Amino acid sequence: MFKINDNYLKLPGSYLFSTIAKKVNAYSQAHPEKKIIRLGIGDVTQPLAPSIIDALHHAVDEMGKAETFHGYAPDLGYEFLRRAIVENDYKARGCDIAADEIFISDGAKCDSGNIQEIFSTDNKIAVCDPVYPVYVDTNVMAGRTGTYDAGKEVWSDVIYMPCLADNHFAPELPKETPDIIYLCFPNNPTGSAITKAQLQEWVDYANKTGAVIIYDAAYEAYISQEDVPHTIYECEGAKACAIELRSFSKNAGFTGVRLGFTVIPRELKCGEVSLHSLWARRHGTKYNGAPYIVQRAGEAVYSPDGKAQIKEQIAYYMKNAKYILEGLKDAGYAVSGGVNSPYIWLKAPNGMTSWEFFDYLLENANVVGTPGSGFGPSGETYFRLTAFGSYENTVEAVERIRKL
Amino acid sequence: MFKINDNYLKLPGSYLFSTIAKKVNAYSQAHPEKKIIRLGIGDVTQPLAPSIIDALHHAVDEMGKAETFHGYAPDLGYEFLRRAIVENDYKARGCDIAADEIFISDGAKCDSGNIQEIFSTDNKIAVCDPVYPVYVDTNVMAGRTGTYDAGKEVWSDVIYMPCLADNHFAPELPKETPDIIYLCFPNNPTGSAITKAQLQEWVDYANKTGAVIIYDAAYEAYISQEDVPHTIYECEGAKACAIELRSFSKNAGFTGVRLGFTVIPRELKCGEVSLHSLWARRHGTKYNGAPYIVQRAGEAVYSPDGKAQIKEQIAYYMKNAKYILEGLKDAGYAVSGGVNSPYIWLKAPNGMTSWEFFDYLLENANVVGTPGSGFGPSGETYFRLTAFGSYENTVEAVERIRKL
Repeated sequence: MFKINDNYLKLPGSYLFSTIAKKVNAYSQAHPEKKIIRLGIGDVTQPLAPSIIDALHHAVDEMGKAETFHGYAPDLGYEFLRRAIVENDYKARGCDIAADEIFISDGAKCDSGNIQEIFSTDNKIAVCDPVYPVYVDTNVMAGRTGTYDAGKEVWSDVIYMPCLADNHFAPELPKETPDIIYLCFPNNPTGSAITKAQLQEWVDYANKTGAVIIYDAAYEAYISQEDVPHTIYECEGAKACAIELRSFSKNAGFTGVRLGFTVIPRELKCGEVSLHSLWARRHGTKYNGAPYIVQRAGEAVYSPDGKAQIKEQIAYYMKNAKYILEGLKDAGYAVSGGVNSPYIWLKAPNGMTSWEFFDYLLENANVVGTPGSGFGPSGETYFRLTAFGSYENTVEAVERIRKL
Repeated sequence: MFKINDNYLKLPGSYLFSTIAKKVNAYSQAHPEKKIIRLGIGDVTQPLAPSIIDALHHAVDEMGKAETFHGYAPDLGYEFLRRAIVENDYKARGCDIAADEIFISDGAKCDSGNIQEIFSTDNKIAVCDPVYPVYVDTNVMAGRTGTYDAGKEVWSDVIYMPCLADNHFAPELPKETPDIIYLCFPNNPTGSAITKAQLQEWVDYANKTGAVIIYDAAYEAYISQEDVPHTIYECEGAKACAIELRSFSKNAGFTGVRLGFTVIPRELKCGEVSLHSLWARRHGTKYNGAPYIVQRAGEAVYSPDGKAQIKEQIAYYMKNAKYILEGLKDAGYAVSGGVNSPYIWLKAPNGMTSWEFFDYLLENANVVGTPGSGFGPSGETYFRLTAFGSYENTVEAVERIRKL
């Protein structure tokens, strides 16, 4: 008689964004006349840039001719893309990452969920609190998190690093030493960023304690301040302790195109075993590559035209971020983020919980945001809005909230 | 100090097709003048059909306009594709599968590797021997297979079901009762198929013993004989015991496009828990959907033009299969498969091992095949050739082998 993975039954409720989608659908069906503005899930709304569209069309044509047809991709991904990444994301920032230390994938969500598989189940993880739910949930599924305290909404074997207004939403070195540290900067959900000096402290700490850092840099394209690092490999010693996850979703609007990559430097080892070799084995066995046409689209992101067009898109979203940030500040809300990140993090007013504010906003302003408590216990009473809407919708949403 | 998943270190050597690629590259670099014909890895060579190319271009254009841009896909995949699958792959064959029992993914390799995650690690798996390596390797990574006997090339906790000439390469019900049974028909690597009556025996056995069948039907488009089932749900009672994996790689040439799906009927349960809900949770947490443009390409596979064009492609490959099968039979080889499958399974001549024959063929005929032993101990002395080359290359490869 087959048995299921019981760890799944420990997971409380469903995946955060599925729950939100269900709530919004229910409201929308009950009130079909209402125009709902979605500033909840981190999905982009701007179309793909023209040079990316051109690259896709070109690659599609190639797939239609026997001479230029592409079947299975190379295990690590196509070299043309990995080289473009090396040149633009690493070499240009003074980081010495080799093309064969890059693994092309279908996105940072998958990579951030899958990466824990190459580690033993008895590692202890540390996460920021609030945190992107995938890090914790996938460790729950693997049986790495102990028991769940439904009252406190915490796992017994997870080290939580509270990120609150007091510490400017930057985690402090934990008291208990973790084995695996998940960091995400610019941060999802708080929108906070840390300086290179602050990140260097984490790298030094990991190297001192023998921990590995899983560094999610999915939002690096939104960095506007000089002293905020774009990659963890800007820090000295990071290649010995850090895996970096990157995405094309937020810089180039690939949420529905699916492309990302993971960097594992060869010198990152546990004893004699390089994590690179483990991930290579997983990647080659449980994955079969991003589509050729999508990898060509990724290459176009790094073309001169592509870069210019994408810069404009990011500026568009950051104009929204500024509008939300200033509009809500004016209206008396406590807000942060939105400077190096497309996320605005705000305190729910009048002592409301996060979900109370979610319902309140959905029903009274027809605006959808994300309840902070969905990201962890320290997210309770907070709320996330994203800058990924259209400018018109963003302005309207802010006006509606101001009028409440 | 972080610790790795030690199960990875138990895996012998590297992934089969990576090893082959390395050997071929080495030979090719040493002999740049030789024209190597690859009939090894199951990669297709025909370009995408015109109606699929049209659908891709159309979807790319949609992604370039704000009004028709698509971001994150729905968790299960787009309904337009799931409905097309229901109509064509199930309803048309008298099988009652609902659209929300279908999970769109980036391919059957990933699904067949990931599906074991929803099961407990103390389930015992049964696999055909020889077998597609992903089933076993991913169970090794999860720690489900016990210890490896390097001499016999078997895992202590895996039930092997030998598929040899004696039993016409069809597995027999195992003596020891398994919890999870992997079946793949038409079979990779042997190219064998089983009748609906034979498959019904497996379904009855699973329902009687409380086992779950993971049924890989990636090659169903190649079925030419009447009594061979296209889906396991043609068998009575299969919805209570079977998960089906399907692919667009082999029917529509999507090896470099990446699309597949998994069917989990809602009535497939372990006690009160439906496997559907577990896979939905995994799918929503560790995966982020196939690209919109690729899902539109998948839809085109089911259009009237798409169906006609794809039928031609399969006929093209099956002409190759017939040529290999008859050519090698004429030359005195013991061959099977190739009737309901693009794979031809042959016995290495003169008492050679599989890898000896691999090297022999590479060096003397410059033809690449796949060593049967790479698929399991009962594959030793066997060899797989695929019909996925061009007709010209296939003819030339057969002529070269005949001349040896």
